[in-house]
Amino acid sequence: MKKIDLILIGNELLNGKIQDRNTKSLSDLLYEKNLELRKVHIIRDNEEDFFEALDESQKYSDIIITSGGLGPTKDDLTKSMLAKYFNKDITHSEQTQTIALIHYDRGGRAYDSEKIHYHKMPKDFTALLNPVGYAPGLSFKGPKATLFALPGVPSEFTGMLKESVLPTLAVPSTEIIKHVIIRTSFIPESKIFTDFDPLLWEKLEDFGEVSSLPHLMGVDIGVKISSNTEVEIKKTEQKVLAIIHSTKLGEHIWNIGPESLEEVIIKKALAKNLKIGFAESCTGGLLASRITDVSGSSSVFWGSIISYSNDVKIKSLNVMQKTLADHGAVSAQTAKEMAQGAFDVLAVDIAISTTGIAGPNGGTKEKPVGTVGIGICSNTTKSGDLFEFKGDRQTLKLKFSEFALFKLLEQINEYKK
Amino acid sequence: MKKIDLILIGNELLNGKIQDRNTKSLSDLLYEKNLELRKVHIIRDNEEDFFEALDESQKYSDIIITSGGLGPTKDDLTKSMLAKYFNKDITHSEQTQTIALIHYDRGGRAYDSEKIHYHKMPKDFTALLNPVGYAPGLSFKGPKATLFALPGVPSEFTGMLKESVLPTLAVPSTEIIKHVIIRTSFIPESKIFTDFDPLLWEKLEDFGEVSSLPHLMGVDIGVKISSNTEVEIKKTEQKVLAIIHSTKLGEHIWNIGPESLEEVIIKKALAKNLKIGFAESCTGGLLASRITDVSGSSSVFWGSIISYSNDVKIKSLNVMQKTLADHGAVSAQTAKEMAQGAFDVLAVDIAISTTGIAGPNGGTKEKPVGTVGIGICSNTTKSGDLFEFKGDRQTLKLKFSEFALFKLLEQINEYKK
Repeated sequence: MKKIDLILIGNELLNGKIQDRNTKSLSDLLYEKNLELRKVHIIRDNEEDFFEALDESQKYSDIIITSGGLGPTKDDLTKSMLAKYFNKDITHSEQTQTIALIHYDRGGRAYDSEKIHYHKMPKDFTALLNPVGYAPGLSFKGPKATLFALPGVPSEFTGMLKESVLPTLAVPSTEIIKHVIIRTSFIPESKIFTDFDPLLWEKLEDFGEVSSLPHLMGVDIGVKISSNTEVEIKKTEQKVLAIIHSTKLGEHIWNIGPESLEEVIIKKALAKNLKIGFAESCTGGLLASRITDVSGSSSVFWGSIISYSNDVKIKSLNVMQKTLADHGAVSAQTAKEMAQGAFDVLAVDIAISTTGIAGPNGGTKEKPVGTVGIGICSNTTKSGDLFEFKGDRQTLKLKFSEFALFKLLEQINEYKK
Repeated sequence: MKKIDLILIGNELLNGKIQDRNTKSLSDLLYEKNLELRKVHIIRDNEEDFFEALDESQKYSDIIITSGGLGPTKDDLTKSMLAKYFNKDITHSEQTQTIALIHYDRGGRAYDSEKIHYHKMPKDFTALLNPVGYAPGLSFKGPKATLFALPGVPSEFTGMLKESVLPTLAVPSTEIIKHVIIRTSFIPESKIFTDFDPLLWEKLEDFGEVSSLPHLMGVDIGVKISSNTEVEIKKTEQKVLAIIHSTKLGEHIWNIGPESLEEVIIKKALAKNLKIGFAESCTGGLLASRITDVSGSSSVFWGSIISYSNDVKIKSLNVMQKTLADHGAVSAQTAKEMAQGAFDVLAVDIAISTTGIAGPNGGTKEKPVGTVGIGICSNTTKSGDLFEFKGDRQTLKLKFSEFALFKLLEQINEYKK
């Protein structure tokens, strides 16, 4: 199997200015082709570090992909560094100029060859079309590895990957690979592999590479199985699942497969033809935003009333002023009334509410930062309960929304018209 | 200045299963101390790649921080790999056991030394307290560099960094460093540095290291200035800003400083004592979620009506059935009525609405995926307009919300009671 290194170039990735997203995008796209990265190097815009990374990548990998440093400003040094590393002159290239002109024509801008040098290329390098931006990419078949230099802007990086890099990586193989993924919640990793069944890992390992990946509120167990026939894959998968089902994991499993919590919720709500709605305070729209990240969510998600102020809780969700005065905005009672309000106002089958303290301010001794009220309203359930989590503001918003989504899934599973 | 390498260990970071967040967290924390990472290595759970990364890190850096591989499952190999690399036996350690027991006591769980090996440690290594989870961290003063091995779970990684690693990195220095950051929107990088002023980069470089960082809808220009006195820093900053103001960038600058768009909005709305509200369709709560990520947003953000279904648009936002029938949900008219609805229902000073097609389905020839209607309602402005963006579903939600936030900032800047 081909080995692939990714080199991300840019001081901004190492000084906190930006969050890298290209590693995840590339890994996802390779995963679909049963390929994996060997290593990612994140380096500053300087020759010494770049050359060191190129040396190592050439030693171990067949494909080197770089990201960043192709733009028009003075800190965009990738092209000149590559020319120096491979000892090539940078010269005018017809092929490169043609590609640069396509980009400028598409953007409706005039190309100024005095100010911009997109028409130049190291000798023996080929320019790659940029489906989104202005800077061409570069490709070069080196003595030890094939190199692709792509722009760092995520949409340009991903666009160019799909168009020019991935098609060259096709692996002709008769081997079928399947990642069996068992997604669990509300159980720690150590409990699964020590208390439940200390030999679980070894038992699963008989069928392929095992992985255990903790997420916000649970663990994903993975087994990578392979075979030459679909029938064998199916059989092996059944054996893996039989082992899983022989443990006490049952009630903790919320999905067999890679789908996200949001996707499982949409799929199951759709199957039961349910309408879903929210009343959000502390999650501030995150709950709705997570659900609407899923294409097709509009068939089941009706809406959400984000009532950050008490005025809106009273006016748009019919929460009683007395409830707020007697119990406070963050309380089981308010959560219950908010869910009832969303149920009525949005005219849905299941409504979930969140009202809590995401911090860093606003906590008290009785209700510290991390306290959240979750309300549920359906044809059978009308409840409000308080829970407590730990973390900073963003983490708490994430945990509150994750927990609310698990409550929603529970309601969908139990729902009977 | 101390050089620092980060080694992230875990197959899950290279096969698309998870998005690394530890690099950004560490970079942010180092930035506050005027420190920067030299390099980040993301590697698989195997000895060869880990040893190669350790060799390189020891060659160039003084501090090596690793993340991941300290948990209780069989793919958690960091401790044993480090013991082998530094040629140390793993043995029972009183100090390590004490720390493990603190973690288990805090979690209310019994420590089972038969099943879990958190009480063992390579000789000459020290255990680090985990402020959140169960696995202790490791530290070791090696012959060439000091090593810290931290858990990969983001909250544990960051907690241990703050508690045990950063305090050891204090740099006694009289030098004051300031990053002057000029944040612009709706102008490409090449226009700033070529059309506006081809010598801008060189002029700014006289004062310190220059950077240019494109973001979703603009560019951040940065100049890192340093001096021994606050007075000199202030003077140099004024000179940098005078150069910036001598260009035609003026109207494109929306902030001088590192604050995010959301933070600037909250600060300015607060200064004018304004109430803000939204009516969201295509952004599905993302607009409200971004604003509520900012601590203190509850003083200006009243709420948002997320009307994913037309029913909710009609019932909760008073959009006219005729408007939806005549112009469609994604139209300037509907956007205008949604904003008016939010303005009335939420009783705010400025309401912004979004209604668009985030895709991948739902586009037509007249209104392709990426079309968005943005509505504005205030005491002086009542408008609705259609715009068009490109990208996948998540990118479009992000662009729609970013554009709506810029529209909101414009309204706040112009607002007069």
